[in-house]
Amino acid sequence: MKINHLGIAVKSLEESVPVFEKVFGVKAGETEYVSEQKVNVRKLSIDNCDIELLEGTRPDSPITKFIEKKGEGIHHCSFEVSDIVNSLNKLKEEGINLINETPRTGADDMLIAFLHPKSTAGVLMELTQFKGEETI
Amino acid sequence: MKINHLGIAVKSLEESVPVFEKVFGVKAGETEYVSEQKVNVRKLSIDNCDIELLEGTRPDSPITKFIEKKGEGIHHCSFEVSDIVNSLNKLKEEGINLINETPRTGADDMLIAFLHPKSTAGVLMELTQFKGEETI
Repeated sequence: MKINHLGIAVKSLEESVPVFEKVFGVKAGETEYVSEQKVNVRKLSIDNCDIELLEGTRPDSPITKFIEKKGEGIHHCSFEVSDIVNSLNKLKEEGINLINETPRTGADDMLIAFLHPKSTAGVLMELTQFKGEETI
Repeated sequence: MKINHLGIAVKSLEESVPVFEKVFGVKAGETEYVSEQKVNVRKLSIDNCDIELLEGTRPDSPITKFIEKKGEGIHHCSFEVSDIVNSLNKLKEEGINLINETPRTGADDMLIAFLHPKSTAGVLMELTQFKGEETI
């Protein structure tokens, strides 16, 4: 298992992108709009993971709601697994609460599923699998 | 630049360690006590970074205070740089607020310094350098 990306909720990409570009010394990619989450996303790639800056585009975006409740900051952490269905089944058997019991297709055509932060000390964790690695 | 570890504030290592061991499929290391922060730490190593579970041991521990204010969750993210003094100087010049303008020695004899989360969208970022890589 390895970290894939950190998702950071920001109020304004326009304000935050230049700051994170300075901190990480890399340029952010183009803005991608994820309609399901109502967010604009810009990614910065560092040596061993990506940083995703997430800006809600509507009041009912999960990112806008997160910022209202908790302020800006890390929204989720994403970890790569080789067989997401197997991982979810194992975690469910072991009593970990899942938000998604079966994976869905996320950005970049990855399979993704969220664990419930109540199980994992308040950390919203995403499991992700490249579809090319799909074993089912 | 690459991610070194995620620091997660937990109320109880006893409760959280078994959960994260299940999620990551690895065993946590032994408990280390960091007197300066008044925390007990247990680390889980995954392929490309570590997860540090942090439990405050006193009411005035920064971790205990963090949980009181924000609840359990990600406390900080640590990123490795090759020359921490140079990185801090550059970031300061570029207007990033620093908590530590000069590095101090942290756990595992690493040089560490924190950036101020007000500059970085609420994310508490630590820069870290292995002393063996020290260039000054």
